[in-house]
Amino acid sequence: MSLVVIGTLAYDSVETAHDSRDGALGGSAMYFSVAAAPYVTPRLVGVVGGDWNPEHMALMADRGVDVSGVETVADGKTFRWGGRYEPDWNTRHTTFTDLNVLESFEPKLPESFKDSDFVFLANAHPQVQMQGLAQVKAPKFSVADTMNLWIEVARPDLDQLLTKIDGLILNDEEARMLTGENNLIRAAKKVLDLGPKVVVLKKGEHGAFIMGEGLHFSLPAYPVTEVIDPTGAGDCFAGGFMGAIAKEGNASPETLKRAMLHGTVAASYCVQGFSVEDIGKRSLADYDERYQDLLSIVTL
Amino acid sequence: MSLVVIGTLAYDSVETAHDSRDGALGGSAMYFSVAAAPYVTPRLVGVVGGDWNPEHMALMADRGVDVSGVETVADGKTFRWGGRYEPDWNTRHTTFTDLNVLESFEPKLPESFKDSDFVFLANAHPQVQMQGLAQVKAPKFSVADTMNLWIEVARPDLDQLLTKIDGLILNDEEARMLTGENNLIRAAKKVLDLGPKVVVLKKGEHGAFIMGEGLHFSLPAYPVTEVIDPTGAGDCFAGGFMGAIAKEGNASPETLKRAMLHGTVAASYCVQGFSVEDIGKRSLADYDERYQDLLSIVTL
Repeated sequence: MSLVVIGTLAYDSVETAHDSRDGALGGSAMYFSVAAAPYVTPRLVGVVGGDWNPEHMALMADRGVDVSGVETVADGKTFRWGGRYEPDWNTRHTTFTDLNVLESFEPKLPESFKDSDFVFLANAHPQVQMQGLAQVKAPKFSVADTMNLWIEVARPDLDQLLTKIDGLILNDEEARMLTGENNLIRAAKKVLDLGPKVVVLKKGEHGAFIMGEGLHFSLPAYPVTEVIDPTGAGDCFAGGFMGAIAKEGNASPETLKRAMLHGTVAASYCVQGFSVEDIGKRSLADYDERYQDLLSIVTL
Repeated sequence: MSLVVIGTLAYDSVETAHDSRDGALGGSAMYFSVAAAPYVTPRLVGVVGGDWNPEHMALMADRGVDVSGVETVADGKTFRWGGRYEPDWNTRHTTFTDLNVLESFEPKLPESFKDSDFVFLANAHPQVQMQGLAQVKAPKFSVADTMNLWIEVARPDLDQLLTKIDGLILNDEEARMLTGENNLIRAAKKVLDLGPKVVVLKKGEHGAFIMGEGLHFSLPAYPVTEVIDPTGAGDCFAGGFMGAIAKEGNASPETLKRAMLHGTVAASYCVQGFSVEDIGKRSLADYDERYQDLLSIVTL
């Protein structure tokens, strides 16, 4: 079934303790699409500037992403973000954020995207997320991401969004900030009280869990032995998660549990390279192989 | 089958952000025994001073622990330890360590303990651990714990111990210190190169994994919604783990995986109270109930 993602495309400047990339392909919806592409043809909605390299559009299209929903503002500049990681990977410093064309971004879904069955609202202002969601005629299952910034500066909008979506994906820090609960199980339950039917709580290298009515499933991260760049791991998790759901065509508890493994696999390939240098080359066979490996690690 | 544990009995003074206990029943072998008792009759080897409260011996005996290997040094004082936890639980400060009778402790196994099938060497100087192990005639499966102190001050002894035991249980920080590897998967593999057939790597609230020849199984922690005191959680994990192995009577990969769940269950009860205030009251039925709950959370 069809899957649409609304979010950002970016050029990222990333420094790790070992290496760096300047102006690398980035953005939440870009990572999501590249991660989901082995499962479905992700419909990508976003905006870039006149500085966007056509080769990057070709890269995504070759990967199997439907890029017809990417708007180009010829006289604008693409969103740019810079980040630096501490050697332990757990601390990330944002070195700069140039919103550029993102500042006035209003998602416009092509007609052909409006019948999408599954919807992912990548990290953006909750008003933008709601604008995107409103254009999908009859979503079977919609999931949003968010971040600390929106919890702080757009809480009323975020609260409204939470009543309109089926699922929320967020990390441990965001869950604590959103709910005021330090304990993550209690935090997840409080998120459910805010509206979503399911919540996926990501804990980085410590895995993730999903919770909902009659649903509680917890999973360690895939044991990657060499992390190169964690940027985009959360978006790739979401891409693998939603891609698997769209491929199965339903969001039953059984599908959602399997989707947690698919998300974990996608995130593990993501961190093995800068930008989409690793995951962008991974085939469905690669995904399947690692899925089986992960399954063996978590099965009694 | 039979299970012997060699380690400490102590009086602990613990402060958390919410409450405190002074002179509470503690010690690695005490926690281990109380945790393992629903599965087998743990044979406890340790030492206490003349200040030991007979009620505490009765408490352990009532729980089903064989305390005939606990030596009393009438003119000595029991080992005392003090610790304080930061509100996030992740940082523990040792406020004092009075070794007392532990300073000259040489484990002496009663004759009736020497035929033990399964052996746990709780945290102690590796020479003491080897002295204990040497008294067991034909151990089927022996596992040791260790700590940063011994990695720093008794590395040659620890290296020798590692060639004599079947398994090592340690936490993430200890694994990194022992191997010089930051990545935990690589650290675990390096531990195996040092001698043990299996390694159990504990990550506190983030769960644990076990690795060995043809064995790799990873598990999240049980989702406890209110932590009261984490002291002894690692020892209780070991108690549940070894207790389940002794009950099953073998250390096959399948048994070891199930034992990881049993250890996780025991640790989860431990942290729900100070000292053994919670886990000391837990029946086999309680253990089974939570085992099934945990199993449902990690099963696809």
